Amino acid sequence: MEPFAFEMRSNEISGRGLYATILIPAGTLIHTAPCLLFTKDSYTAHARHTVLEHYLFNCTNGDRLLALGYGSIFNHDETPNVDFRVDRENMCITYRACREIEAGKELCIYYGDKLWFDYHGKKLEQESSEEEGENFLSRIEL
Amino acid sequence: MEPFAFEMRSNEISGRGLYATILIPAGTLIHTAPCLLFTKDSYTAHARHTVLEHYLFNCTNGDRLLALGYGSIFNHDETPNVDFRVDRENMCITYRACREIEAGKELCIYYGDKLWFDYHGKKLEQESSEEEGENFLSRIEL
Repeated sequence: MEPFAFEMRSNEISGRGLYATILIPAGTLIHTAPCLLFTKDSYTAHARHTVLEHYLFNCTNGDRLLALGYGSIFNHDETPNVDFRVDRENMCITYRACREIEAGKELCIYYGDKLWFDYHGKKLEQESSEEEGENFLSRIEL
Repeated sequence: MEPFAFEMRSNEISGRGLYATILIPAGTLIHTAPCLLFTKDSYTAHARHTVLEHYLFNCTNGDRLLALGYGSIFNHDETPNVDFRVDRENMCITYRACREIEAGKELCIYYGDKLWFDYHGKKLEQESSEEEGENFLSRIEL
């Protein structure tokens, strides 16, 4: 388990977030999140109808992964400082600094083009869809 | 976030587990797991029909919490070395050493009386029930 370069803090806007505790060089492996697997069928029948819809990551075969560790705590940013990669075989998601991150800065990933919440006070329209695969993070190429 | 006194390792019996990296004195706060909330209704309609059934912790009002962080990685032991407490208000679960734990030992909690898997090679009968509240960890007084 890599040493932690971040801590979790509460904040008024998003509830919880992750913040760098040290200067993090670009490319640093920040976190490896162990995951829970939801098969495509389980996702379609049940998981998508729960709060998980906002948290699950897509696998190429239609399965979904829920990030444990601190993978589900990263907030969204239009110009993220953290990239992630889904590793279905090892049931984990890895997070790396995509640029240098100063101590104290929030660590954010890019959720995708469709957001269902206000982002920095800018009202975004919620687009609902009954089509499979319209969930959170589904727009990201993994 | 408390400093980590454990690491996650893979093992053949249970897949993944947590192991002490240092001598942990009795009473030590080992981990505070942030949680995701599933309302009682969401649990009954959907969450219990997924893999979550084996992971959710009961709240007194019927809601359920899923432990992020490393809370869902603790394995079961009949004589556990870790106690946990559900904190619904702060949406977290805390884990403390209930006795001194040597470096290298696996950290385990007590899941409850009804298990659905083999425990150390001893075949346990799976008791299925359609009654609400028969899920994993539901037998533990929180």
